Amino acid sequence: MARRLKHWGWGYEDEQPSHEDLRASADFIRARLGFGGEPRAHVPLSEVVLPEPRLSAPRELEEIAFTDSYERALHSYGRSYRDIFRAFRGQFDHPPDVVLRPRSEAEVDAGMQWAIGEGAIVIPFGGGTSVVGGVEARAYERPVVTIDLKALDRVLEFDPVSHCARIQAGATGPRLEEQLAEHGFTLRHFPQSFEFSTLGGWIATRAGGHFATVYTHIDDLVESVRALTPAGVWQSRRLPGSGAGVSPDRMLLGSEGALGIITEAWVRVRPRPTHRASSAVRFRTFGEGTAAVRALSQSGLYPANCRLIDAEEAGFTGAGDGSHSVLVLGFESATQSVDTWMKHALDLCSDHGGAWERRGSRDSAGNWREAFLRAPYLRDTFVAMSVLSETFETAITWDRFEAFNDHVLGAARAAVAEVCGAGSVTCRFTHVYPDGPAPYYTILAPLRELEQWDAIKRAASDAVMEAGGTITHHHAVGREHRPWYDRQRPDPFAAALRAAKGALDPTGALNPGVLID
Amino acid sequence: MARRLKHWGWGYEDEQPSHEDLRASADFIRARLGFGGEPRAHVPLSEVVLPEPRLSAPRELEEIAFTDSYERALHSYGRSYRDIFRAFRGQFDHPPDVVLRPRSEAEVDAGMQWAIGEGAIVIPFGGGTSVVGGVEARAYERPVVTIDLKALDRVLEFDPVSHCARIQAGATGPRLEEQLAEHGFTLRHFPQSFEFSTLGGWIATRAGGHFATVYTHIDDLVESVRALTPAGVWQSRRLPGSGAGVSPDRMLLGSEGALGIITEAWVRVRPRPTHRASSAVRFRTFGEGTAAVRALSQSGLYPANCRLIDAEEAGFTGAGDGSHSVLVLGFESATQSVDTWMKHALDLCSDHGGAWERRGSRDSAGNWREAFLRAPYLRDTFVAMSVLSETFETAITWDRFEAFNDHVLGAARAAVAEVCGAGSVTCRFTHVYPDGPAPYYTILAPLRELEQWDAIKRAASDAVMEAGGTITHHHAVGREHRPWYDRQRPDPFAAALRAAKGALDPTGALNPGVLID
Repeated sequence: MARRLKHWGWGYEDEQPSHEDLRASADFIRARLGFGGEPRAHVPLSEVVLPEPRLSAPRELEEIAFTDSYERALHSYGRSYRDIFRAFRGQFDHPPDVVLRPRSEAEVDAGMQWAIGEGAIVIPFGGGTSVVGGVEARAYERPVVTIDLKALDRVLEFDPVSHCARIQAGATGPRLEEQLAEHGFTLRHFPQSFEFSTLGGWIATRAGGHFATVYTHIDDLVESVRALTPAGVWQSRRLPGSGAGVSPDRMLLGSEGALGIITEAWVRVRPRPTHRASSAVRFRTFGEGTAAVRALSQSGLYPANCRLIDAEEAGFTGAGDGSHSVLVLGFESATQSVDTWMKHALDLCSDHGGAWERRGSRDSAGNWREAFLRAPYLRDTFVAMSVLSETFETAITWDRFEAFNDHVLGAARAAVAEVCGAGSVTCRFTHVYPDGPAPYYTILAPLRELEQWDAIKRAASDAVMEAGGTITHHHAVGREHRPWYDRQRPDPFAAALRAAKGALDPTGALNPGVLID
Repeated sequence: MARRLKHWGWGYEDEQPSHEDLRASADFIRARLGFGGEPRAHVPLSEVVLPEPRLSAPRELEEIAFTDSYERALHSYGRSYRDIFRAFRGQFDHPPDVVLRPRSEAEVDAGMQWAIGEGAIVIPFGGGTSVVGGVEARAYERPVVTIDLKALDRVLEFDPVSHCARIQAGATGPRLEEQLAEHGFTLRHFPQSFEFSTLGGWIATRAGGHFATVYTHIDDLVESVRALTPAGVWQSRRLPGSGAGVSPDRMLLGSEGALGIITEAWVRVRPRPTHRASSAVRFRTFGEGTAAVRALSQSGLYPANCRLIDAEEAGFTGAGDGSHSVLVLGFESATQSVDTWMKHALDLCSDHGGAWERRGSRDSAGNWREAFLRAPYLRDTFVAMSVLSETFETAITWDRFEAFNDHVLGAARAAVAEVCGAGSVTCRFTHVYPDGPAPYYTILAPLRELEQWDAIKRAASDAVMEAGGTITHHHAVGREHRPWYDRQRPDPFAAALRAAKGALDPTGALNPGVLID
């Protein structure tokens, strides 16, 4: 039997640690955090009661249609803390009625057309790793058909001259990387969900990736997109650049399944880097680190990695000893040595009080990435031991960053203290631009009930909005961020987007609840 | 009296050469090209007959409303060869009925609202340098109000920390650069129309600028945009990056005045570069140069200048002696020496057969830019001496470039030979991406009548479309490129855009004829 994903958490069922291992992890975590309970076990699927499916697939879709509890539970939620909290407790109020797993674009189209004909809503589903309620049915008056694209996982064409590949939307990070590796190439898009999330999901949600500068979002790696809409096939030309009107690709990027189902894309890939340089630079304060990163972001050096981590978070993740902020800095190239780049970057860091070891830091970027990709597994343990673990992320210009950070940290810490009585809020930069950073905040606190999460999320999001940030730099809007997104986006733009959706999807079948109503 | 722009051509009236100088230029050009007639004089404005204005401005707009022949003629056309050809001959069939020159955003709004109330169409007008019929009224059943934004030309705010400025849409290149220079900063966006075109026009048309890599279009320099639509003010937040749904800024970029009137934007500026390196690299063939530029585009070196010019065009413009292709290569930085960058780039050129002088090429980029910005003046002379001078530009992936170029050059040369009996078609790259170049073609040929221009434009555009290119990389769609753009853009996207426009501009007042109907 093939490995099965956990229906309630991160990763495969066979990766779930034994209760003994879980207790050992919990003891270790509790000792560091000062809070957290004994780990409990999740409600097994056999004890989960789901509402009866309200639809059954027609004969021609039977082979790809699933209505069993496992598939319906697995596709009920994304993978936010809030999702895992509920799934862990066996709470699945709004599962899809039918899960389709098409094996071809034609089957995607047939499934979408059938669902629309039935008056159902259609939720496109990639890795299901949304942390913003992007794949969760909340309006439950209409039947729900979730279309899981993971069987469309092939690299269909590879262009070694233009360094591009045509890839199906359902390919996960590892699947597309293993196929590209046969050619010595890589996409190098490593969101934290890399192991399970898919190219189509990245495009629909404007996922942030590996590169800390220039090529920060998947947007920058997309050459053309193909999507199925109820109004027909949306296919752009393969073009390295174009100025022909409003960009059609940029209208699908971030469309979150509301305009169509992305089925494939041409993306820009690159040879595996052969030259690397990596350093972990220490700063006495986050402010000094911020000044150095600002200088780096405005230097034209374009580091591949440029993650500034505050002292507390660095201590907790092992990137530092907790006494200083750490900048994980990296350059990479498949063409030439990057030593000059690193030298200039370290000179800038030095100008702002940075210090680093001459040796021994070559693997800091690799270590950091390994820890980064393992973090979602740890979160399952946090849920089991009643520790709230939540992140929120944004972007803000440099001139406002200090006041912004004070306001947001202050509001989030006050909410954590009030709601949970203890806990921490830490900050790192995930991506940086010449005009500002993308700060990423991590909250850890003791939790009794989900309403505490809601209250903290609300306080943090309010603070981000008040201080001029974006409700998300790379986690998307989904259903969770809607109240704040609605305050952020220009009203005439929302009217335009609503009309655009109306033209493409007149029955409002496609992922209702995200972005616009 | 203030300097007046020529109502028929490029630049100011006082810059028009004397007839004697014009004859000398014509003799020189004729000797090089082997064709071209004696220069004639343009039809003076006093001999131009315009249709009577069908509207007059209300009392509250009187101070900013103009209906004199000069203003109406000046605002009748953009500055394509086709436009100058007609204006030179005194042919102004569809002048705007009223030209408004608002001095504030409130006056822009009042003007737009008044025009819509009158059932007029509204043409937003920046520098009026469109080469694609972007500001020309063709549907003439409704009265036409052109809103010229050039009085809104101030840098309103400067942010020295984030390296950003808030600039009014009517600021021309020189106007905004002189204000930024007070702070030691520069936008470094130098389209060929730089002297007269405006920030708002650049955003509306997705203009291509100075940087040959990474920051190729104005798109990449825009932090937020503010526009007036009939449905209200469209204002995005100042954000260095965001992933909150479809980008609102990307929907205004390339909207060509059809969705709203852009009034201001925050843009990313930078300190003036203090480190520069520049080289002119010779290649025996354009193919060798192409291979070198491909390697450069995929190297991560990101040259600021990377213009490959074929032998014939290099000979004509003085960049070379006509026996070899020339790559104008430049790096610049305000932070660190760029010598290492240039060394790596020249190594790559050398690998592909490139050769260069050790000394004496430091000014090649500057010379090239000077000649580049003077070219539109020369075109007035071409019009006067009945020489067809036309450019078309596109983008294509590297894997298809050779076949593409053969097809497009072949089709354009065949059309020139058939229609004009003589002439040349040359090629250069204006911008390059890791996945392909943006080729730019220049046509020079003897001309008798405008239908010859139409036939050649048609043949070239057909060839670009057939071979997989985009109808424009940075000249916009306007009215001239519509037939080919309509074949290029995805149908569902056009439906979405049409619906978006309908929601914002229900009377279809804003610049009808561009992009969509």
